[in-house]
Amino acid sequence: MADSNLIYGHHPVAEAIRAGKPVEKVFFQQGIRGDMEKEFRHLAKEHNIPLQVVPREKLNKMTRSNHQGVAAYLSLVAFQSLEDVLPFLYEQGETPLLVLLDGITDVRNFGAICRSAECTGAHAVVIAQSGAAPANEEAMKASAGALARIRLCRVRSLFSAVEWLQESGVQVVATALAERSVRLFDADLTLPTAILMGSEGEGVHPKLLKMADKVVKIPQATDFDSFNVSVAAGIVLYEASRQRLTAGV
Amino acid sequence: MADSNLIYGHHPVAEAIRAGKPVEKVFFQQGIRGDMEKEFRHLAKEHNIPLQVVPREKLNKMTRSNHQGVAAYLSLVAFQSLEDVLPFLYEQGETPLLVLLDGITDVRNFGAICRSAECTGAHAVVIAQSGAAPANEEAMKASAGALARIRLCRVRSLFSAVEWLQESGVQVVATALAERSVRLFDADLTLPTAILMGSEGEGVHPKLLKMADKVVKIPQATDFDSFNVSVAAGIVLYEASRQRLTAGV
Repeated sequence: MADSNLIYGHHPVAEAIRAGKPVEKVFFQQGIRGDMEKEFRHLAKEHNIPLQVVPREKLNKMTRSNHQGVAAYLSLVAFQSLEDVLPFLYEQGETPLLVLLDGITDVRNFGAICRSAECTGAHAVVIAQSGAAPANEEAMKASAGALARIRLCRVRSLFSAVEWLQESGVQVVATALAERSVRLFDADLTLPTAILMGSEGEGVHPKLLKMADKVVKIPQATDFDSFNVSVAAGIVLYEASRQRLTAGV
Repeated sequence: MADSNLIYGHHPVAEAIRAGKPVEKVFFQQGIRGDMEKEFRHLAKEHNIPLQVVPREKLNKMTRSNHQGVAAYLSLVAFQSLEDVLPFLYEQGETPLLVLLDGITDVRNFGAICRSAECTGAHAVVIAQSGAAPANEEAMKASAGALARIRLCRVRSLFSAVEWLQESGVQVVATALAERSVRLFDADLTLPTAILMGSEGEGVHPKLLKMADKVVKIPQATDFDSFNVSVAAGIVLYEASRQRLTAGV
């Protein structure tokens, strides 16, 4: 990540967070206790920002200046709150189409998925606070700029997000090859829908898979491996858009 | 490309081509004329292999040994003849589904498209002799190994290939945003079909676009750019497979 996105020092970092600046991640010096630790842990939690404890040397290397024990990367994009986005979509008369990413750490795949989401008119991409790809310049490039346009929501926990979406009338549709999987085109995606994609290696977390309202699979003609995750996301988004256009939703 | 795939010297290269070894490309020394030039130009043409004229220094650097004016890279995969593949598919009672790549030079996109083609059960990927991505180790990696499984055909000219496919009862469906474009899902892809994809920058060659039986577009909700080419190829292949599964083809 370019150093131009780096800020450091007790006051600058705390103020950036309080002012609602898009902070990607906070680096906090190992061994610092007391009020300062409490303050930053509280701020990070409050604003859904990952906080990573690192040795002093790491901060010295990052900042080459007096960092006072804390530094942070500003994100290229502003995160929005899922709790704000969903009611807004309902008010606008939209049928929500969201993409939930579970453990997709590959920056290029993340960017490519954001690009497809923007192309198909998905309303937001939702990532977890930890274990997600950073919204950095490489992701921006892979997204062909879509990262700057699509709504990006960062949530503390995908489990709570799934639960909350379901309570709010959004069906959660996981993509996986599971026993209960139905063919993608047999699932009704004209309803308010959150598409849940897992990483290529791990797939969707078993607990999330269990929580999902539906599990879909993209039909394969051969026993060969499976689609690249960004291609798979593009296909599921296309299918949702095909169904919605056909049904006039 | 790994040097392990490099062969050089008059006899070794000529024999590799004559024996039908999968030769990716021939490098021929600038200024060599007469029988040797005639021989290699003829061999390259006969076997649909690109021949590139290079300065002696380039060959010296590539081979670090006595190359006698010619070197060649062996391909990781064997190319098949489109003229053999299509009749074979008809004989097997298959409804051909082919992918034609026009000017897709990005190795990762090429690999990813081969991966999707293999997943959806497309019968072959067709590339042109020049202006195509090499079937090298990076492409193999991006394809997750699909390059070693999918049939790969290399043709001298995509124009003649399109013409020949049409004469052989295969509809050629180009993907592009053109005036005559119909929505992807409004095109009947249950017929014998060759999907024609262009590069992200240039798109499908205007002459090929004019020759195509149909032009389709993936519906977009926004005016934002467009899909990544490997995602677009995955979507078109999915749609063909959806229609065929639904129709029981």
